[in-house]
Amino acid sequence: MTTVSFLGLGEMGSALAGAVLRTDHPTIVWNRTATRTAPLVDAGAVAANTPAAATDADLIVVCLFDHASVHDVLDPLADRLTGKSILNVTTTSPDGARELARWSVAIGADYLDGGVMATPEMIGTPAAGVLYSGSRRLYDDHRTIFESWGKTEYFGDDAGMASLYDLALLSSMYVMFAGFFHGAAMVGAAGVPAKEFAARAVDWLHAVVPAIAEYADVIDGGDYSVPGQQSLEFSDISDIVEASRAQGISTELVDVVQRLIHRQIDAGHGSDGFARVVESIKDPEAAA
Amino acid sequence: MTTVSFLGLGEMGSALAGAVLRTDHPTIVWNRTATRTAPLVDAGAVAANTPAAATDADLIVVCLFDHASVHDVLDPLADRLTGKSILNVTTTSPDGARELARWSVAIGADYLDGGVMATPEMIGTPAAGVLYSGSRRLYDDHRTIFESWGKTEYFGDDAGMASLYDLALLSSMYVMFAGFFHGAAMVGAAGVPAKEFAARAVDWLHAVVPAIAEYADVIDGGDYSVPGQQSLEFSDISDIVEASRAQGISTELVDVVQRLIHRQIDAGHGSDGFARVVESIKDPEAAA
Repeated sequence: MTTVSFLGLGEMGSALAGAVLRTDHPTIVWNRTATRTAPLVDAGAVAANTPAAATDADLIVVCLFDHASVHDVLDPLADRLTGKSILNVTTTSPDGARELARWSVAIGADYLDGGVMATPEMIGTPAAGVLYSGSRRLYDDHRTIFESWGKTEYFGDDAGMASLYDLALLSSMYVMFAGFFHGAAMVGAAGVPAKEFAARAVDWLHAVVPAIAEYADVIDGGDYSVPGQQSLEFSDISDIVEASRAQGISTELVDVVQRLIHRQIDAGHGSDGFARVVESIKDPEAAA
Repeated sequence: MTTVSFLGLGEMGSALAGAVLRTDHPTIVWNRTATRTAPLVDAGAVAANTPAAATDADLIVVCLFDHASVHDVLDPLADRLTGKSILNVTTTSPDGARELARWSVAIGADYLDGGVMATPEMIGTPAAGVLYSGSRRLYDDHRTIFESWGKTEYFGDDAGMASLYDLALLSSMYVMFAGFFHGAAMVGAAGVPAKEFAARAVDWLHAVVPAIAEYADVIDGGDYSVPGQQSLEFSDISDIVEASRAQGISTELVDVVQRLIHRQIDAGHGSDGFARVVESIKDPEAAA
């Protein structure tokens, strides 16, 4: 059996620890606010009174607030971590993950970075996935533990790659949610409840999400003029911007999308396909 | 049998006419560039040489480039349109649709506005839907024709509502696509093909789209402090903005999302749920 310890029991840390407990591996839990350990202790975990007491484990899972709090908790434990395996699933930047990987090497620990692509409720279901990068050995040794959380994917020994992928997927999500709020505000100004709009938006977004794969083909192909695409000129969203303004709501979000579209049209690519918008994002110089 | 005529045979107009032809209703087609009528004539349609020749129908479907082109084609036909039923599915603004409804009343025609929530390929499949508003009588009389295209929904006699809903759903879609391009550019700068990112983004977006319905409940409830939500403070996307900058790509899109989030935090609502971002969009004054 593998002894797994958890440093940090927010919603996500608690969900990850709960899933390991259900696999009957010995589980140690620590949290700054000790009361959060209670439900896990009831489920069979051992509570550690200090972070140091949680280092006596085969795998140490760190799930704290941010990069700084990881150092706050781990730095005083450096001597105890030599030879240990650390999985950090705290949301950190790619460079933050790389820095933690170097710090771990310096103290003789093995480091794997994880990006959790799930809400806490999804952990342990097939809908959850965790992206990993860093120590291949650590990933291979503890993969069965990781599989108790959801799908696993390994992105190589650059510890920053899981975080980069994680943040890229999260960026798509946050921007999508903002787009929903924009649409809800548009019809909301005409008295339509958000719930009525959401019912249609959920169906509509599910219907159009697969188009992403077609855009990706065009992007990788490198030829934005392949036939059968919706052109940039046809993708002008003036109607959306003007209707938003007429509804008295902010146009900031749709303005920036319109700007990304028009930067390509203005550069003479209006008859190319919509996927070319990615070039406006790839090249920040053109924004000046 | 209902005789249906089509003014405008772009990709969408051709798809709509094709679906009606398959129901065996007599179909008349006109297009400025006459060659586009050929495939439909082969399938049994009658080609009209002039727009005037296409007015001798029970239902006239207008699918042109924009609001101005609708007037360009219909204005010279005003005398012939008295007593006729006009369905306009050209993408127009809500105010543009209302103007066309008033124009139709003035010449004694019945007007229904339609917002097509589908790509041309989806027409005639269960994935397609068309939103309608304007003349209830016209909607009721020709509903079986409309059902040959996809799901139908009627939003009342304000001719502008279908367009408003249409543009709100399209705004959510265009913003979501832009969010995908942003994520693809982030990992693309590290050499990851768009196709690899898209495979994960499609799964991820399908997994998180349903959260929209929960946000809508919170928005309609009017209390952004209900427990169990991800807080605005936790939704800070500095990591995404900084990682985007580190990858050398444009941060315009994520900057505006971060701004919408932080406007609520700055107003003292950091512990409220993420859904409160809609308030930043509803109130453009606060942006100043």
